[in-house]
Amino acid sequence: MRLAFALAAASLAAACTPASQEAAPEPSARYTFWRPAPVEGATEPSEVIARSTAADWRAVAPDNLLVMELADGKRVVIELAPDFAPVHVANVRAFARAGWWNDAAIYRVQDNYVAQWGNGDAEVALPQGVVRTPPPEYERDLAGLPIRPLGYPDSYAPMVGHAGGWPVAWDPESGKAWLTHCYASVGVGRNLAPDTGTGGELYAVIGHAPRHLDRNIATIGRVIEGMEHLAARPRGSGDLGFYAAERGETPVAIRSVRLASDLPEAARPRYEAMRTESAAFSAYVTGRANRGGSFFNRPAGGVDLCNVNVPVRRAQG
Amino acid sequence: MRLAFALAAASLAAACTPASQEAAPEPSARYTFWRPAPVEGATEPSEVIARSTAADWRAVAPDNLLVMELADGKRVVIELAPDFAPVHVANVRAFARAGWWNDAAIYRVQDNYVAQWGNGDAEVALPQGVVRTPPPEYERDLAGLPIRPLGYPDSYAPMVGHAGGWPVAWDPESGKAWLTHCYASVGVGRNLAPDTGTGGELYAVIGHAPRHLDRNIATIGRVIEGMEHLAARPRGSGDLGFYAAERGETPVAIRSVRLASDLPEAARPRYEAMRTESAAFSAYVTGRANRGGSFFNRPAGGVDLCNVNVPVRRAQG
Repeated sequence: MRLAFALAAASLAAACTPASQEAAPEPSARYTFWRPAPVEGATEPSEVIARSTAADWRAVAPDNLLVMELADGKRVVIELAPDFAPVHVANVRAFARAGWWNDAAIYRVQDNYVAQWGNGDAEVALPQGVVRTPPPEYERDLAGLPIRPLGYPDSYAPMVGHAGGWPVAWDPESGKAWLTHCYASVGVGRNLAPDTGTGGELYAVIGHAPRHLDRNIATIGRVIEGMEHLAARPRGSGDLGFYAAERGETPVAIRSVRLASDLPEAARPRYEAMRTESAAFSAYVTGRANRGGSFFNRPAGGVDLCNVNVPVRRAQG
Repeated sequence: MRLAFALAAASLAAACTPASQEAAPEPSARYTFWRPAPVEGATEPSEVIARSTAADWRAVAPDNLLVMELADGKRVVIELAPDFAPVHVANVRAFARAGWWNDAAIYRVQDNYVAQWGNGDAEVALPQGVVRTPPPEYERDLAGLPIRPLGYPDSYAPMVGHAGGWPVAWDPESGKAWLTHCYASVGVGRNLAPDTGTGGELYAVIGHAPRHLDRNIATIGRVIEGMEHLAARPRGSGDLGFYAAERGETPVAIRSVRLASDLPEAARPRYEAMRTESAAFSAYVTGRANRGGSFFNRPAGGVDLCNVNVPVRRAQG
């Protein structure tokens, strides 16, 4: 039996009433029921990682590693995504080299949304090399990306998957792809549209993936270590989670934000991320979509993009 | 142009290659491209709430309200879902009436996953009225539920939407529906399958929706106030986020967990939730799927189930 669900006529009745395929409206206005096909006995994600070989991993380049040291001694490390937002990423590197965030703070923590940091004033003199008005780097050409389709439907985009280590969505008709907002994604704070932000104010997602931000904000990377030092912060009681000084809420001071490539070689943290083009990663996705073992009763047979976090580890050896 | 994507043959090429509809495999193994149809000028979610009328809201029943007071003075309030897990919910009520959690603690906080509480030992003598081995209340009959389809595809289930105020998934062919794990969902901790847990150990989701838990754990409600008092807790450094006493990590003491219906009437917190069968809620969903205003460049034209939180407010008047 094939069932079609007409979005345009969404109603209580429509949900459970099969409609003939012939009568279905055009693709832009409907989708076909997708039925998960669970895989019994899929390899557990942790086991996939344990069995992986060195060839399944890539080193994270030191000039794509942003190391944020907080005044309380905690460290947050971010991988940058220059292939998706090159001008914003170049700005972020220039800000880091200029010590822009060395007196900055985490001044906003909104529950189930974002933690945001900066110095709260991007209008002052910008460091050398920072472009004041970057282009809207909200999507890029699909061509040239080593796309690995997720294999399951998405609630926001025609297609989703991974490319070069990043969660992405794309539209085969427009030929455009874009980074998605998942837990730990890092984006560029900005003013009202059409402002695109310089990169001086950044945020990380600390809740359920706010995918409605996709293609509305420049996404420049993701936190690969220390995410809990952002997510476990007290929420701000001001509008949008800003810390309210009048209620004694104190922004968290940042000691420094530097590129790993600007640190002495011996002091650089080094990471590896699983290659999303590898067979190991495909097995990992299958494992995430079909959790098994002695705890689960039934594998889901599906997974959403933001529940497949690309494995990252400290560099081996 | 209609595009079909063969899951069984997922490959780099398949992602961008149109396949004829005739050649597509059966629904169980494929899905049709879904193309978001953004709505410009949709009413913003906050505006939908502002314009709603009293008829769009339902009172949350006091015997479905679980009030958890923490030793540090914070309060977490949970709405129970007896229509989905009646035996587990009856157990939770019996535990509350017996003061079961009055010396309990939040002993596990795992980043991007769950905060869990209880007394860590459900094997001792259980309070009167608690069923030691509840049935696996992981799904229920679809019939009888006032289903409101979301209208967008889901990565885990054939259909998703809301029913009686709750996020649900369902399968029209099996005729079964189930509560989904979203941010703030509350579930019953359990041992390995086929154990279903008594309800003595509970957890709340503090990260991206772990939908792979759907139909694997009894979901019994959701946090409707004070979510930040769980989500902003320091993460535990032990396996699975358990607090590690040997590293000085202290579980958060719980002062009491009571049903609002067991409190003096004047002391009961009172809440209203938006009726998910109302036109207001439909407008709210459309607004969530099509964020606009002066900030957004483009509405998404889609939203996932767990990004549509049913509005809840303190009771008016």
